[in-house]
Amino acid sequence: MFERPIFERMCLIGIGLIGSSLSLAVQRHGLVGEVVGCARSEATRQTALDLGLCSAVHADPAQAVGGCDLVMICSPVGTYAEIAERIGPHLREGSILSDVGSVKQAVIRDVGPFVPDHVHFVPGHPIAGTEKSGPEAGFAELFEDRWAILTPPPGTDADAVQRLAALWQGVGSMVDTMDARHHDRVLAMTSHLPHLIAYTIVSTAADLENHEQQEVAKFSAGGFRDFTRIAASDPVMWRDIFLNNREAVLDVLQRFNEDITALQRAIRWGEGEVLEDEFRRTRALRQGVIEAHQAGSFDPREPEKA
Amino acid sequence: MFERPIFERMCLIGIGLIGSSLSLAVQRHGLVGEVVGCARSEATRQTALDLGLCSAVHADPAQAVGGCDLVMICSPVGTYAEIAERIGPHLREGSILSDVGSVKQAVIRDVGPFVPDHVHFVPGHPIAGTEKSGPEAGFAELFEDRWAILTPPPGTDADAVQRLAALWQGVGSMVDTMDARHHDRVLAMTSHLPHLIAYTIVSTAADLENHEQQEVAKFSAGGFRDFTRIAASDPVMWRDIFLNNREAVLDVLQRFNEDITALQRAIRWGEGEVLEDEFRRTRALRQGVIEAHQAGSFDPREPEKA
Ligand SMILES: NC(=O)c1ccc[n+]([C@@H]2O[C@H](COP(=O)([O-])OP(=O)(O)OC[C@H]3O[C@@H](n4cnc5c(N)ncnc54)[C@H](OP(=O)(O)O)[C@@H]3O)[C@@H](O)[C@H]2O)c1
Ligand SMILES: NC(=O)c1ccc[n+]([C@@H]2O[C@H](COP(=O)([O-])OP(=O)(O)OC[C@H]3O[C@@H](n4cnc5c(N)ncnc54)[C@H](OP(=O)(O)O)[C@@H]3O)[C@@H](O)[C@H]2O)c1
Repeated sequence: MFERPIFERMCLIGIGLIGSSLSLAVQRHGLVGEVVGCARSEATRQTALDLGLCSAVHADPAQAVGGCDLVMICSPVGTYAEIAERIGPHLREGSILSDVGSVKQAVIRDVGPFVPDHVHFVPGHPIAGTEKSGPEAGFAELFEDRWAILTPPPGTDADAVQRLAALWQGVGSMVDTMDARHHDRVLAMTSHLPHLIAYTIVSTAADLENHEQQEVAKFSAGGFRDFTRIAASDPVMWRDIFLNNREAVLDVLQRFNEDITALQRAIRWGEGEVLEDEFRRTRALRQGVIEAHQAGSFDPREPEKA
Repeated sequence: MFERPIFERMCLIGIGLIGSSLSLAVQRHGLVGEVVGCARSEATRQTALDLGLCSAVHADPAQAVGGCDLVMICSPVGTYAEIAERIGPHLREGSILSDVGSVKQAVIRDVGPFVPDHVHFVPGHPIAGTEKSGPEAGFAELFEDRWAILTPPPGTDADAVQRLAALWQGVGSMVDTMDARHHDRVLAMTSHLPHLIAYTIVSTAADLENHEQQEVAKFSAGGFRDFTRIAASDPVMWRDIFLNNREAVLDVLQRFNEDITALQRAIRWGEGEVLEDEFRRTRALRQGVIEAHQAGSFDPREPEKA
């Protein structure tokens, strides 16, 4: 166990959905003495102050990290290399540098070279999120009952890893540690491919004529609406994920393509048994999700009526 | 306006999610004098009595329809031809025969030939549902704020169509009338393709080794869980839909395949701009769904905590 607060001063670089949720959660649970932040836009910095997400905000990440014993990068992964280069020389001795990025090999590749020897680099990824973005989208419960994955490079200080794990546990998460390459392969299946597919199907519908698109929205309760929700996620964040987990994504996509071709053929030739068998074998995985308490819940009624 | 009850006696053939929800809804709103039913299994018939879904139940559809001024087929569409052949001779003069099936051209093809001249055949489809099945899954609010589509063949009695429309409006739905072929094309995009894709991606994951599948469930909150929910829908119902809307489904699937190939290529060649543009253009459709009040709502927290 670590005494609370676990960290004296945490710096968030990027204050969007994840950064703001983390700030609210660590403050609620008294895990961090002070939260400071850095964001690109004046609007986000002002909102962070107004909502009490940060006690101080900066435009320059190098300034923001000063005196912090935990620096958490919470911006799209495509911004990491530049941020790391800027902050590297300003990181406090003995501090931990971590992040929440959705890919991990690329983060180690981009950030690793800029981390001074006296700083512990422990990349991480909370498997939690919504389709919303920005500092106003955050809520303190986001990480409860969710897994946080840490991917410390070989040789990382064990105490630093444990200290960071304690922070994630403190906000309600379970923590798993694994190799970055394994992380990227698993997440390609559980997160990156689903988002790619959702973007694609909504894009297919967006190619329809205008009046047909209106019908698609009108009759979307038959299944399509769920895909539009997933495809509402931030375009820049997802562009960066696909650019930075190319190999693993292309690999699962290849397998998906083979599977859909098989179903396509079964539909074309009217092979009812093949279809039914395929549709039946997906049930065990749904059960697994429910048993792992990772299902969330969908209310088919409209929000204002629920 | 029609006086209430709009129908004296409604017969449900099939008492699953849709049949049970319809029974609860028409009873709540006083739209039907009496609801009787027919289901294959003794267990479903008993449940229908126990839950007050039907005042009488039968194993034989021909017996169930006796004296009814509305017969609503609520079983998987693959069962329709046989059911229609059985009940045709027993339908009451001037009564309405309708259904809730997710495809409409095939229903007209399969049922039409067995409808006597003195019966009004008005096929329908409520665009409402969940991934759950069976008589215990129903709830009276299922159809509120949802569209119900009617596809009466040319020459159908206008009063019969209006009477049926009044029933759906009475349970809270908006009603649209269209040609069966148009219905099947629109629903292929908004419902059938999304389900096919969801089944496929969960099936792709189900091909992984056992321990990898466990990881997929564990880390499913990154997007995959939504697909498992959709793919939890009844395998027989969906087999029948794909077998009976082959042409329209294969057509949208072909377009989906082209679109995913384009994204695949953009990922392979690192074309960030193409990805970002694609991800951005899907937002308007999400907005359309929300504005059409068809979004439902997802709660990322676990049900027992919400
Ligand atoms: N959303 C999810 O579901 C989810 C889940 C797990 C992990 N993640 C990861 O978490 C990270 C953040 O995602 P998010 O959803 O919180 O994103 P978001 O809501 O879009 O917020 C991104 C934040 O990063 C800031 N930013 C962008 N470029 C920057 C730069 N060059 N320097 C400093 N700040 C910069 C933005 O500032 P402005 O507001 O001023 O533009 C904004 O505050 C991503 O790496 C993503 O992969 C996301
Ligand atoms: N679920 C949705 O989201 C949704 C939405 C709109 C429309 N629909 C359409 O609604 C219909 C029913 O769907 P559902 O979700 O309510 O299905 P469900 O929950 O699986 O129930 C199907 C019902 O049909 C009965 N049945 C099956 N074969 C039969 C037969 N040969 N004769 C008499 N009864 C038979 C079943 O009886 P047992 O219980 O005894 O097996 C059961 O009561 C389908 O045509 C579907 O396309 C579904």
